[in-house]
Amino acid sequence: MEFNRVIDFKEGKHDVITLGELVVDFISSGYLQKEGSRLMKDIDSFSRHFGGSPGNIAVNLRALGLNPRIIAGVGEDFLGDYLLDFLHQRGVNLQGITRVKKDRTSIVFVSKSMKNPSFLALRGSDKTLTHNEIQDKIVDEGKILHFTSWSLSHEPSRSTALRLLERAKEKGLKISFDPNFRGVLWEDPEEGRRLIKRILPLIDIIKPSYDDAYNLFGAGHERQDSPEEYMESFLKHGTGLVILTLGEEGLLAGNGKKVLRLPSYGKLVVDTTGAGDAFWSGMYASLLRGYPLEKALRHGSYLSAYKLRYTGGIAPLPSFEDIIKKEEG
Amino acid sequence: MEFNRVIDFKEGKHDVITLGELVVDFISSGYLQKEGSRLMKDIDSFSRHFGGSPGNIAVNLRALGLNPRIIAGVGEDFLGDYLLDFLHQRGVNLQGITRVKKDRTSIVFVSKSMKNPSFLALRGSDKTLTHNEIQDKIVDEGKILHFTSWSLSHEPSRSTALRLLERAKEKGLKISFDPNFRGVLWEDPEEGRRLIKRILPLIDIIKPSYDDAYNLFGAGHERQDSPEEYMESFLKHGTGLVILTLGEEGLLAGNGKKVLRLPSYGKLVVDTTGAGDAFWSGMYASLLRGYPLEKALRHGSYLSAYKLRYTGGIAPLPSFEDIIKKEEG
Repeated sequence: MEFNRVIDFKEGKHDVITLGELVVDFISSGYLQKEGSRLMKDIDSFSRHFGGSPGNIAVNLRALGLNPRIIAGVGEDFLGDYLLDFLHQRGVNLQGITRVKKDRTSIVFVSKSMKNPSFLALRGSDKTLTHNEIQDKIVDEGKILHFTSWSLSHEPSRSTALRLLERAKEKGLKISFDPNFRGVLWEDPEEGRRLIKRILPLIDIIKPSYDDAYNLFGAGHERQDSPEEYMESFLKHGTGLVILTLGEEGLLAGNGKKVLRLPSYGKLVVDTTGAGDAFWSGMYASLLRGYPLEKALRHGSYLSAYKLRYTGGIAPLPSFEDIIKKEEG
Repeated sequence: MEFNRVIDFKEGKHDVITLGELVVDFISSGYLQKEGSRLMKDIDSFSRHFGGSPGNIAVNLRALGLNPRIIAGVGEDFLGDYLLDFLHQRGVNLQGITRVKKDRTSIVFVSKSMKNPSFLALRGSDKTLTHNEIQDKIVDEGKILHFTSWSLSHEPSRSTALRLLERAKEKGLKISFDPNFRGVLWEDPEEGRRLIKRILPLIDIIKPSYDDAYNLFGAGHERQDSPEEYMESFLKHGTGLVILTLGEEGLLAGNGKKVLRLPSYGKLVVDTTGAGDAFWSGMYASLLRGYPLEKALRHGSYLSAYKLRYTGGIAPLPSFEDIIKKEEG
């Protein structure tokens, strides 16, 4: 993927298909005094938020005028009702969402955070998603398939995700992957690293955080590599475009030929939850409107900065036109 | 158990051993407009509370100057840390509590309620409790073993509970059982009903709510029996004393020879969570101080009325001396 080129997508009714974890985030009502989950025991109030990276992106894209689809599972309980209501109210199509009978809706307790939130995931329906034909049909009509490592960590959602990934690749969709890799989400983290490295050649766009990169390539090593070195590790595994996010220091993007650095546009930081999802959303909206990659990365960064002002995964977003104005002004 | 007699307990260091579910209650910040779990989807804020009937009773008893022990499991996560901190701060001994590695701390979402709360249980460590020798030693030194049907609903906690129940019976402890029976907590509710009916002959004191009684004896029947008829059903199964609670209408107690009715003393009702546990606590404190059963039932009712003024399972309780004064005045 060239930075100054427009990316071609195959024809399809669905702009972006997000696959994976729909969860209810319970976000602490205050900041932790220190980061680290031990202190979450002292928090006595939590607010309920729509969450899960694939869900956040779908809601954002709809708000930006695009046509997303979600492939995910929710439980048959009030938390699942809430997630479906939320999506419906935001105009997101629910066709690809399964109500999982065997398991409860997944929950994540998360600390409101200006840096890296502490979290505790009580996973249910997101790892119990089974395959069905509706999912296949959705994939066939898509331009981009987007997923994270959550769906890969446990069966049966792992097989479901790998099957849809393969189908999407065959049908010519672009494949995006947000590792969101945390060892605690896997029964065997080493198996997780191996599996993710195995699928890297299939990925067109990956957006790891520096922590993701360290967790995937650096765990057990004596020293942490530089962002440039980690970027190189992903490229060597065959991924097309690597966007390595560095928090306050912005991002580093590389395709094996060129490297681009962008600063963070975030000035006011209230809560980092969902900032990466806002980035993806802005970038997709831009790419799908025919902007070249470099512009799309800037648009993503602007949207991420907007999100940082609000608590929770979903923020009131500006229109795409406003982002363009901001970028041009 | 005669109403006007003092109950004899065996000697022992531990006044009451409570066995079963330690959970974190997430209680809705407002009341539901209608009762029924469907509407819990609209609640956007929850406060975290110490919960689970056996835990509530142990904390209450400690506040009333008695020496309780808890046999239970919590997960190795921040919710488990919170429960242990809470108990420790209230002076409850933690020796009988296992940190369960395989499962998360159990959570219950519950609506703040003036009648019957809606709830959703996400169960983990409470059903994964395994047996160990420390539990045996605690039981050997107890006067009363108290448990609910939660521990019976799933293995391995079911085997643990039945084993300790048997041991307690052999050692001459009084056995108390709060059914707290809800079909949704069982994979096969009918199996649950059978199991509970099988242990009823071992129970010295049972305190079902009218709903418990209906769920155990009335499910599938065309009409609901009267409280008196349900009381009779428990007695026929061999339970010593039945205390059937009737919400605003107080309670009905019977031992097969005599029936006693007590009104509810609750005037201000803020939240019903834990009201039954406060009842047990007041009754135990009274019985163990040598008051006859009828007085103890009144003391329990007074304590239950105190609890109703506060949100959550644990309320600031009056001293036992104040309860006596109130009852005599």
